Amino acid sequence: MEHVLHLKCLICGQEYQPDAVAYVCPEHGNEGILDVVYDYGRIAATISPASLATNRETSIWRYKPLLPVAPDTAVPPLAVGWTPLYKADRLAGDLGLQHVWVKDDGRNPTASFKDRASAIAVVKANEVSGEQVSSVKSPRHLVTLPPCHLVTPSPAHPLTITTASTGNAAAALAGLCASVGQPNVIFVPKSAPEAKVAQLLAFGATVLLVEGTYDDAFDLCLQAAAEFGWYNRNTGYNPYMTEGKKTVSYEIAEQLGWQAPDVVFVSVGDGCIIGGVHKGFMDLLALGWIEQMPRLIGVQAAGSNYLAEAWANGEDVLTKTPIKAETVADSISAGLPRDRLKAMTAVTRTNGAFVTVADEEILAAIPALARGCGVFAEPAGAAAYAGLVKAAREGLLQPTDRIVVINTGSGLKDVAAAMKAVQGVGVRPYAIQPKLADVEAVLKPGE
Amino acid sequence: MEHVLHLKCLICGQEYQPDAVAYVCPEHGNEGILDVVYDYGRIAATISPASLATNRETSIWRYKPLLPVAPDTAVPPLAVGWTPLYKADRLAGDLGLQHVWVKDDGRNPTASFKDRASAIAVVKANEVSGEQVSSVKSPRHLVTLPPCHLVTPSPAHPLTITTASTGNAAAALAGLCASVGQPNVIFVPKSAPEAKVAQLLAFGATVLLVEGTYDDAFDLCLQAAAEFGWYNRNTGYNPYMTEGKKTVSYEIAEQLGWQAPDVVFVSVGDGCIIGGVHKGFMDLLALGWIEQMPRLIGVQAAGSNYLAEAWANGEDVLTKTPIKAETVADSISAGLPRDRLKAMTAVTRTNGAFVTVADEEILAAIPALARGCGVFAEPAGAAAYAGLVKAAREGLLQPTDRIVVINTGSGLKDVAAAMKAVQGVGVRPYAIQPKLADVEAVLKPGE
Repeated sequence: MEHVLHLKCLICGQEYQPDAVAYVCPEHGNEGILDVVYDYGRIAATISPASLATNRETSIWRYKPLLPVAPDTAVPPLAVGWTPLYKADRLAGDLGLQHVWVKDDGRNPTASFKDRASAIAVVKANEVSGEQVSSVKSPRHLVTLPPCHLVTPSPAHPLTITTASTGNAAAALAGLCASVGQPNVIFVPKSAPEAKVAQLLAFGATVLLVEGTYDDAFDLCLQAAAEFGWYNRNTGYNPYMTEGKKTVSYEIAEQLGWQAPDVVFVSVGDGCIIGGVHKGFMDLLALGWIEQMPRLIGVQAAGSNYLAEAWANGEDVLTKTPIKAETVADSISAGLPRDRLKAMTAVTRTNGAFVTVADEEILAAIPALARGCGVFAEPAGAAAYAGLVKAAREGLLQPTDRIVVINTGSGLKDVAAAMKAVQGVGVRPYAIQPKLADVEAVLKPGE
Repeated sequence: MEHVLHLKCLICGQEYQPDAVAYVCPEHGNEGILDVVYDYGRIAATISPASLATNRETSIWRYKPLLPVAPDTAVPPLAVGWTPLYKADRLAGDLGLQHVWVKDDGRNPTASFKDRASAIAVVKANEVSGEQVSSVKSPRHLVTLPPCHLVTPSPAHPLTITTASTGNAAAALAGLCASVGQPNVIFVPKSAPEAKVAQLLAFGATVLLVEGTYDDAFDLCLQAAAEFGWYNRNTGYNPYMTEGKKTVSYEIAEQLGWQAPDVVFVSVGDGCIIGGVHKGFMDLLALGWIEQMPRLIGVQAAGSNYLAEAWANGEDVLTKTPIKAETVADSISAGLPRDRLKAMTAVTRTNGAFVTVADEEILAAIPALARGCGVFAEPAGAAAYAGLVKAAREGLLQPTDRIVVINTGSGLKDVAAAMKAVQGVGVRPYAIQPKLADVEAVLKPGE
């Protein structure tokens, strides 16, 4: 892995060799999140827009030389990433804009953006355990791709992976682990919706319902990982999760012909996704594959606005006290965003902004987005579009701006919210008797 | 569309020019389903395995010359098809088999196989309405693909598309229509789950809740389509739906290096999917791209076994009376399978079989499949795997058989079933206090 130079503490700037630290800066504890620093010259020798143009791998692994893994590293088989980017002309027109695209990350294997990070977690865990084995060809690509190693943990000593989460990150880890038979332990607060727990159990995760808050579950997970020697996938702690998430920016840039958009809207909870988006575009700038950094607009729920508040007031996120977060968009509900440093940097360094949207605006955005471009999003995903609507209304955008909105999760993740959303905009089904006259009566002439 | 020779009635063999009939054989009414017959010589001049090897379109439209649409026809933007095919070695090993793949069609835009048919419906509706306009480039493919027309219905005279359904087909139609702003009317029985109705409403469909059964809704939909001049997407009626569904076989064959599998397992309700699977492999045989027809195994729920029963008893499906269907796998619950002729032909002509599985076996297959290969399926999708388990147990397979199991829908489509499934196999989460000792107590030593 000579293309990785070192890990650098976001707080003190201290640099560490990857094998010299476990996860965070020893000087700064859990706050000392590390950034992976690359040797771009070395990377440029192995991958380029030209080589990608003939690469038929349709997953994040098409960008393997840009990821913190060895070139011959085995990868899990689930097809993560390379999600569609749709031009949404009707949505754009409604907002007085000319160029809006929707990146639908609900199309990932477990139906959320988080699969991008969990795929990396499975690979890194296998590096740590030294149990990287097998050279099974990737079945999906038997014909068109060179042989591709798949992770196959040794049944004798598989390393357990763990995370705390209530939703998408947990499902992503459980699903990716299931694809390779890797044991995993998920810590969720006892209040977690039964449906999400069922999905985890279906994937074979060991699920621990912690009597307490998400923060309690998070802290216990860190302790347990240290105590039992489990690989720790927690976002805003494990430095490699950002590296999986950054692949979305590579895809956006490539799908737009290596012309970076002017603005990117992404919802923000812990802040790790927007941090990843920023890292991805920074990599591409460093490589000279794009010519400009997009403005990154972080969209927060009004009830979970830690970062938006800090940004508006110029507060220091290392000292600002946690808030009590509450929003319908559970995936971006965070009283103390774990990746707040990266998130704040992403917005300030790109001349971006934070925008907040009320729960009603988030819910209204679900049907607006679904009927406007055929993308059915969960509340946290629709929030990004709600942010676009608000930004357009407030004059933060130029009509000619080339804008990408990232949907981070499928609407099927939270059907209850979808029901509430359609009721909220007064849409309802029509009850009729099975006769033509009733159909005619319901549908206005001209329908 | 010179590559389409004619439409041929499955009952009497009468041939019709595509523009000479609306949907079914005039001689045989609703039972007279038509098959699309192609000029394979003409097709072979425009597409081949070699041309596909450099085609970077990653949707069903990579096979456009094999579909019943004009070469320059506009297509809806949602990325349908080219779903992953995963080698499932652990599942295979558990069953004493060597080669099992899972084709995950839950990865389609609205999370089910039915998107393959609905994409065709949108195109055909626009052909009929003559409103095919616009030459917007496909945004997803700006760089790598030749310009691709997108359907953009004229706001002045958009043609309404209609279907009866309670689930996946309705969502697929509503989603595909939303992607191009096409109006659509969905007929569902009043008993339809509120969650599925919410998804339809989010996509902007006009939803009619019919006081009656699915059959009542179906009949009313046919009447309304005729009365109001709507385009009729009903499966087992519209001849082109099979043509969308057949693309799954092209993908399987291509993903396996144009070596057809020996056996394909697919769940069967109305019978249209297995009919499409058969059609796809027949096309490939006719073109000489594969050398053998796989045996097709239709898996039915024990409580919805019309076709399995007819096959076992040698009954004529044109005269066999409907049964009362009831199963946890709602997507394959059909008292009188609408595409029963095609389904029966698919099994008998391929030396295949019908297998029935109990609801308990279907439910148990959900976690088995999820933890065995990371694919979370809805009951109808898991049923195909349950059928494989049963067939293996009953000695219907050779250990060396190359077997593909098709998952037709995402597990997120029916979370209640998933909950029931994990409870059924005795898996449960562990409730703990937020302290390490509790974690240790729950997890056995060696975990």
